[in-house]
Amino acid sequence: MAAGARMIAEMGEQPDVLRRMIARADGLADSVRAIAPRPLAGTAIVARGSSDHASVYGRYLLELATGRPVSLAAPSLHLLYGARVDYRGQLAIAVSQSGRTPEIVTTLTRLRDSGARALAITNDAGSDLAAAGDALVALDAGAELAVPATKTVTAELLAFALIARALGEVPFSDADLAALPDAVTWVLQDVEPARRAAFALVGDTRLVVTARGLLLGAAFEAALKLQETSGIAADGISAADLRHGPIAIVDAGFPVLALSAPGPAFEDVAELVVTLRERGARVLTIGEQPGADLPLPPVVEGLAPIVAVVRAQQLARELALARGRDPDAPEGLNKVTRT
Amino acid sequence: MAAGARMIAEMGEQPDVLRRMIARADGLADSVRAIAPRPLAGTAIVARGSSDHASVYGRYLLELATGRPVSLAAPSLHLLYGARVDYRGQLAIAVSQSGRTPEIVTTLTRLRDSGARALAITNDAGSDLAAAGDALVALDAGAELAVPATKTVTAELLAFALIARALGEVPFSDADLAALPDAVTWVLQDVEPARRAAFALVGDTRLVVTARGLLLGAAFEAALKLQETSGIAADGISAADLRHGPIAIVDAGFPVLALSAPGPAFEDVAELVVTLRERGARVLTIGEQPGADLPLPPVVEGLAPIVAVVRAQQLARELALARGRDPDAPEGLNKVTRT
Repeated sequence: MAAGARMIAEMGEQPDVLRRMIARADGLADSVRAIAPRPLAGTAIVARGSSDHASVYGRYLLELATGRPVSLAAPSLHLLYGARVDYRGQLAIAVSQSGRTPEIVTTLTRLRDSGARALAITNDAGSDLAAAGDALVALDAGAELAVPATKTVTAELLAFALIARALGEVPFSDADLAALPDAVTWVLQDVEPARRAAFALVGDTRLVVTARGLLLGAAFEAALKLQETSGIAADGISAADLRHGPIAIVDAGFPVLALSAPGPAFEDVAELVVTLRERGARVLTIGEQPGADLPLPPVVEGLAPIVAVVRAQQLARELALARGRDPDAPEGLNKVTRT
Repeated sequence: MAAGARMIAEMGEQPDVLRRMIARADGLADSVRAIAPRPLAGTAIVARGSSDHASVYGRYLLELATGRPVSLAAPSLHLLYGARVDYRGQLAIAVSQSGRTPEIVTTLTRLRDSGARALAITNDAGSDLAAAGDALVALDAGAELAVPATKTVTAELLAFALIARALGEVPFSDADLAALPDAVTWVLQDVEPARRAAFALVGDTRLVVTARGLLLGAAFEAALKLQETSGIAADGISAADLRHGPIAIVDAGFPVLALSAPGPAFEDVAELVVTLRERGARVLTIGEQPGADLPLPPVVEGLAPIVAVVRAQQLARELALARGRDPDAPEGLNKVTRT
């Protein structure tokens, strides 16, 4: 099989995976509502790696939808420190594509034993994680064989969007949801900008990826995907944080990838891009605005992270190929986290 | 004034700053207990930059002490997205050395208006942030003139330790607290290992800093301090996350800084260090174990992050000097975050 053939095939399945999940949205909402505590005291998300980045998106959407605090669980508190906690009234949501990351399963079980209602998001409906929840959101994305997770990540992002939709008001409509798969197809068919951007980054050893608000999780995921696939030391950071300390490392020629979508966070990122360019940074942009290096089709900000992540997958793959690496099997990576 | 004279002077004040705050521990506990909701539904921490790293430490300690979920607030939800939230029963803790970061003040005010009891941690008792809280934990660290925050960061870490102590059981004793300032003095007087480590890193452009559990926030802060002071692209990451995807970028000669202390997370980090060395990484260690490159004196794990951060400050300063930079005034940085 040619280098990167698996990753590109799995990336190509994303519109169908998303379409299938959107078709299940109402049933999924029923099962989430059936187990969510009322009143809901808060939501706790348990994840690691790419799933953790989907969780950052979920964190924003769920707090908007539920109006109650959303926390990202610290597994080591439960696995190493034996924390005694009271999670009554909490909805605990654990995310793992394989469903077999032991610390995620154990942490969800501990939170459930501590009073939380437990929801599992996984691609393996027969996994330990699926069994550990009071309810299951199956990604139904099919087997994922390339080491860099792609279709399971965008399915996890959509799962969070649909869970938030089940629990309250969300910043996207059902029509926006219905339009999402075609927007992903549009990006997948528009490869040339990713090739050009990969060419621009081929000699770089490090990269900062930035965004703000709803797109922040997509920036984290873009950084991880670029790092694990192409070997570039990519660091995902919020635009607000970057403007503070870390901008000190951005000097002439430093590469930055900035993600944005029309919405409340747009101006903030746009201003940062101007500042970065004034410092001589080479800024590549993923967005809907005219002149974006990696253009996105019109997608409402609430769902734009899903499309932006697909752009980043494409860039990661092209950059790996440009550097002579096999995107399907980056050196030193395993598929299942066993921490 | 010689390059780096301010930073070293302020680093040198840390034992006294800590000693003064420890002397106030019981009064501080009273004021925290006076405003904390009963029952406590959870804690939400509002911070950015170095204060955000102190918050990661606070996040672990507070969940151990209170047994209730701890969340790190997403300021953009309140500043940009106009989230309507119900924070009744929550203790909201905002941290800012200057007390003048507008988004931190505004976010705390929004959470307070939404039902939270508000606690401000700041070095300026006359600041907007101090005025925005129901109670104040004053750092009382004196003016900080060097751009890289040092004494205010360790004071913030200690503030979280003392707030957690006020609210429940903590993994350190009053005797451990009393011994802390002298441990910091020990590190400050032991400069040679930091010089040697700086020499080892002088030609590097990137660095991964790792730890797990209670020391994770210290790893994040070490990365930021190294980055903003010396210009090295340092990325702080949990040992559990690093072992998953990002280890792919660690190849022969890649520099890694690993922080640990005797305790539940020690073995996990020690095993990762072995794995990293097998991959050819150049691992520098901060810890109490024999052979650590940057040794720490015996300090209980619950307080070790404070001492480890001082080691990292020392390394950041030496590395900046070795690279011909002025640690007091890194290019492109402002003292007050205005996001």
